[in-house]
Amino acid sequence: MTLLIEADREAGFLDWQRCFREAAPDLKIRWWADPEVDPAEVLYVFCYAPEPGRLSRFPNLRLICSASVGVDNIVTDGTWPTHVPLVRMGCSETAQRMSDYVAWACLSINLNLPRIALAQRTRTWDKVTALRTIPETRVGILGMGNLGAKAAQSLRDFGFSTAGWSRTRKSLPGIESFVGSEELQPFLQRADILVCLLPGTPETVRFLSEDRLARLPVGAGLVNVGRGSHVDVEALTAALDSGHLSGAVLDVFETEPLAADDPLWGHPKVVVTSHLASTASRESRARYAASVIAAFERGDDVPNRFDPVRGY
Amino acid sequence: MTLLIEADREAGFLDWQRCFREAAPDLKIRWWADPEVDPAEVLYVFCYAPEPGRLSRFPNLRLICSASVGVDNIVTDGTWPTHVPLVRMGCSETAQRMSDYVAWACLSINLNLPRIALAQRTRTWDKVTALRTIPETRVGILGMGNLGAKAAQSLRDFGFSTAGWSRTRKSLPGIESFVGSEELQPFLQRADILVCLLPGTPETVRFLSEDRLARLPVGAGLVNVGRGSHVDVEALTAALDSGHLSGAVLDVFETEPLAADDPLWGHPKVVVTSHLASTASRESRARYAASVIAAFERGDDVPNRFDPVRGY
Repeated sequence: MTLLIEADREAGFLDWQRCFREAAPDLKIRWWADPEVDPAEVLYVFCYAPEPGRLSRFPNLRLICSASVGVDNIVTDGTWPTHVPLVRMGCSETAQRMSDYVAWACLSINLNLPRIALAQRTRTWDKVTALRTIPETRVGILGMGNLGAKAAQSLRDFGFSTAGWSRTRKSLPGIESFVGSEELQPFLQRADILVCLLPGTPETVRFLSEDRLARLPVGAGLVNVGRGSHVDVEALTAALDSGHLSGAVLDVFETEPLAADDPLWGHPKVVVTSHLASTASRESRARYAASVIAAFERGDDVPNRFDPVRGY
Repeated sequence: MTLLIEADREAGFLDWQRCFREAAPDLKIRWWADPEVDPAEVLYVFCYAPEPGRLSRFPNLRLICSASVGVDNIVTDGTWPTHVPLVRMGCSETAQRMSDYVAWACLSINLNLPRIALAQRTRTWDKVTALRTIPETRVGILGMGNLGAKAAQSLRDFGFSTAGWSRTRKSLPGIESFVGSEELQPFLQRADILVCLLPGTPETVRFLSEDRLARLPVGAGLVNVGRGSHVDVEALTAALDSGHLSGAVLDVFETEPLAADDPLWGHPKVVVTSHLASTASRESRARYAASVIAAFERGDDVPNRFDPVRGY
């Protein structure tokens, strides 16, 4: 039983191989770029952004495990074998890291981190006043999947007034649930900090438009940990420049890596991080993928399966 | 009944006056620098760092309210009238802001904020990996007064494994209590992040010495929100440079403002902020001071009173 692993470099593959050998000793672990692998022997693949057409070339493929929570890099390939179950990364470390990052980003917006960073860079003693305390802050989470629900619960436990927006009603204690397009406006109007954790689907492209950003209260902040494509960057920049929004923490971008000459790097109200919010360790992700493959082998339902109707 | 307010500039005084008029309409509010104030009419003062000798010149002084939690700027004046009650700032907003800052600082150390900031400054796509997740992080709080206890409880609620060190045993649910010099070593050995919230007294000067910093586990981080004098900066810098410590978030310094040529501003593992961690709004501090004065007038015990034996 061969598991094929997508990795840019051999060193990365060897490290994944070490992790999978421990988690799934019965699997034969081979590298994506190994020319000696017979496509017919590949039963499982573990990938993030396979080159278009590649996934359709494994006639005996049983299951695709995404190395990431998002699978848009896989399903945008029109030739991917849609009859094969596709599983999104769901290890608990991914959700924990995302929730840590989101808490940090919300606190960074409240403390005005861009101005604090500028003060340090220019060696200026600048007694920046925090914009709000935690109990004064209403956070709204767009997208209440695994990651959104975990982040919402952490923020609630820490004392933020927390709400979530999703396509179906959620009942998490102490977290207000908003649903569908008719409840989007009241949801946005109460979000001192908006956290975007939407899935990357055709419907969510430019979800954060000029009009929707304008619905946020004056002085609100934005945290984007979904996809770069969710945000109309021009509208965001205008809202920051006009003072309508106080700050943004952005971890994802339309084109990654973000180009060195992109104005976002130097914007005085923006914190840029390099798509690092939820990156779990290889050990933890390999253990999760191994557990999914084992469940599949036993004939059990596999968790976190891509649903082509929802699009994630 | 005159309350005299220390403020550098008249504009600052006028804003304090506005806040106190709302909180204590019966008090006559005068400015520290007003030459027409008769020292004999001053019954109360609200101050942070009065010039030495000044406090002894009010013959009818009943109470001194500190605008800050620390009173070392007041009691280091050898001539201050020690028979007059001195009250430290204890408004809940101060504790909330401190606790927000401490949470942000702990998360910033876990996420390796100095490296994230460097990446943004140099426009480098650098997928920095977080050092630890919250449940993996043991935080130790040095000093469990009002501020330390509030910060410890917030960190505990957020899932950090939290302990406190103090001179007397504390029993806060879920927070391990370490006491006195014999329990300092085990306390330091379990602190992945050490938060210094000690009071500024002669005994706590250079408390964080080379020897004590060496007791922290490899890769530990330091958050200093106590006093600049608590840290042996040379020893801290050496511990960061050797890799024994992974990072530091410093809000207080021996000399403030921190000089523009101070190497801490540019240290690749240090976040510098400008003594802003716990600054509450004037409204909130004025309300607290007014409530203390009212309690005193009624003959009630005043809270947060300076104890000359403890030194804070």
